[in-house]
Amino acid sequence: MTTLTVLGSTGSIGRQTLDVVRHIEGELKIHALVAAKSVELMEKQARLFRPAVVVMMDEDSALELRGRLRDLPIKVDQGMEGIINSVIAPQVDTVVTALSGRIGLEPTLAAIEAGKAIALANKETLVAGGDLVMSTARKMKCPILPVDSEHSAIFQCLEENPDTVEKIILTASGGPFFGWTREELATVTLEKALCHPNWDMGAKITIDSATMMNKGLEVIEAHYLFNMDYDAIEVLIHPQSVVHSMVEYRDGSVLAQLGRADMRLPIQYALSYPTRWRNSFERLDLRGKTLSFHEPDMKAFPALNMAYSVGRRGGTLPAVMNAANEIAVSAFLHKKVTYLGIHDIVEKVCLEHQVLDNMDLGSILDADSWARRRATELIS
Amino acid sequence: MTTLTVLGSTGSIGRQTLDVVRHIEGELKIHALVAAKSVELMEKQARLFRPAVVVMMDEDSALELRGRLRDLPIKVDQGMEGIINSVIAPQVDTVVTALSGRIGLEPTLAAIEAGKAIALANKETLVAGGDLVMSTARKMKCPILPVDSEHSAIFQCLEENPDTVEKIILTASGGPFFGWTREELATVTLEKALCHPNWDMGAKITIDSATMMNKGLEVIEAHYLFNMDYDAIEVLIHPQSVVHSMVEYRDGSVLAQLGRADMRLPIQYALSYPTRWRNSFERLDLRGKTLSFHEPDMKAFPALNMAYSVGRRGGTLPAVMNAANEIAVSAFLHKKVTYLGIHDIVEKVCLEHQVLDNMDLGSILDADSWARRRATELIS
Repeated sequence: MTTLTVLGSTGSIGRQTLDVVRHIEGELKIHALVAAKSVELMEKQARLFRPAVVVMMDEDSALELRGRLRDLPIKVDQGMEGIINSVIAPQVDTVVTALSGRIGLEPTLAAIEAGKAIALANKETLVAGGDLVMSTARKMKCPILPVDSEHSAIFQCLEENPDTVEKIILTASGGPFFGWTREELATVTLEKALCHPNWDMGAKITIDSATMMNKGLEVIEAHYLFNMDYDAIEVLIHPQSVVHSMVEYRDGSVLAQLGRADMRLPIQYALSYPTRWRNSFERLDLRGKTLSFHEPDMKAFPALNMAYSVGRRGGTLPAVMNAANEIAVSAFLHKKVTYLGIHDIVEKVCLEHQVLDNMDLGSILDADSWARRRATELIS
Repeated sequence: MTTLTVLGSTGSIGRQTLDVVRHIEGELKIHALVAAKSVELMEKQARLFRPAVVVMMDEDSALELRGRLRDLPIKVDQGMEGIINSVIAPQVDTVVTALSGRIGLEPTLAAIEAGKAIALANKETLVAGGDLVMSTARKMKCPILPVDSEHSAIFQCLEENPDTVEKIILTASGGPFFGWTREELATVTLEKALCHPNWDMGAKITIDSATMMNKGLEVIEAHYLFNMDYDAIEVLIHPQSVVHSMVEYRDGSVLAQLGRADMRLPIQYALSYPTRWRNSFERLDLRGKTLSFHEPDMKAFPALNMAYSVGRRGGTLPAVMNAANEIAVSAFLHKKVTYLGIHDIVEKVCLEHQVLDNMDLGSILDADSWARRRATELIS
């Protein structure tokens, strides 16, 4: 029996994690559920899963939830301190980090330092603090198990000896605007950008897919997670999202992981690893299917190229790119910048940044805060 | 350094095995080369690779070769005794079994009993003597490493715990007549049947691909090699031959192996396993590629269905089907039976056979001989 704390239980990945917990009998138990401020859904989840603790990042939400859950023996905690206590509790085996954005960094580091296994769904954690997170994980011998479907695919395709890997190939659906020119992209509306062809995901990641920044963040995530040179990480457009990613070996053989576009699969694998649990989720049926592959258009989608450059430079720059992107995407979701404006803002903030190397958590958070301030200034 | 005996060095797989030996420096050494009667090519191979021993199955060929190689310190041996001595020699680590047809069975068993690793390219060995070969291999703790591209793919996709496998999916190009109806297949000529769309192979296996008997033999091979129920072995048509086969796990995840249609890849993997050697073979490039998948047409290609039934019945029946098929294909290659006639003959011989269970080498060879005689009678 594995005991979990789920950070971000009311978000898309969090809800699907709880669906896995419900489907897989006798393997998973919940210690704590954590969310920002979705009181209503959190009440439902708490009543269904009966965790020992629920934590709301927001104080007022915690207060309200405490009232609602008065009849149950569930502790309602709040704020970053509450979150951190919920991940380092001795009974917790694995922490699912599905909080959106940089807010996941601190509790993830705390969990690693407490020796917990991490099911990592918050890619911003590795983009912003990759060196710090991975070196701490290595020191603590703490497994970082990817939940992103692409990274889970690579993790499933990797053999023991890392020397035999020639490159990893991240597949990308290409998003709703695959095949569009820069000129056509100037006409993109919020409504169009929110329609992802294959995956049902949160708004932030859906927009990141539409700009291909999501794939850029995944390239950086893969660099840290698998300790791979950027030269050995390739992106391949695959509009059907059936092949979730691939590993090419030095003998020319390619291993690929395929599956339905169902995030419960990689979530479950991160929790069951190194074994696999039987489930009743619908199976992939390839009969009658056609899979196609294309080179990404780096001109139409400059975010991908930028992410490679930013990743190669390293230091505090990936944290800055990620933070500026969070602000710019949020502004786009509020119709304050255009689709093309997102990239302009992120690029400007990255170019202005004085990169620091050898960062600790403090310098990462400082760079992050600066980038958010600067991006906000550029928007207003 | 791994020392090899190559059974069938002048055939298609044998020649490609020697190409791997030439490409991979410092890893492979040849002890013996074995062929039936291609004296000229064997002389060239002997001069290039300088083995300690060469063996010709045919006595006259051995005599001629002995003359031709008089200037070199190479022992020229002959017959089944010579072949068996060449595989059990103490300096041999791995035996590549690439003799075509049932002639591979005896030396393969001798090699296993001598504790050699087997790079198995002779699928008839497992079809005819699967129970015997695999139980001997298990007893001797002798690794059987598949060279067939499909089985190599599955071998590469299999994780350690066999309980997690839900099914294996053998891909099939469908051969040159994919999509043809039974009526259209009645018009097939030898010339058309010899044109395989993707793979450059020997004549026997090319015809087997055109009838889909090849896939049927592979289903039986997979059953023995991976100890899988026939219900858990599926065939999927994939005309582009890029995905070489797949494994579906009980959590719904599918692992696939992809590569160019180059037999040197699975040959090399069987020899390098558990590691992978760097090579300079052309790489798979998926950009611009489309991969499609279809259900096999069991009505148009009844050999596949027959192989499943024959495999399920087991005993001496797979050996009989294989032997009758060898005779029928040979007759087709000599234009003595039609394309559709191949199946009729094999089916008739299988139906007439009195199946024996608990077979030893003797009963397998008896059943094989009977089936050859009976198929020959039916043809003339």
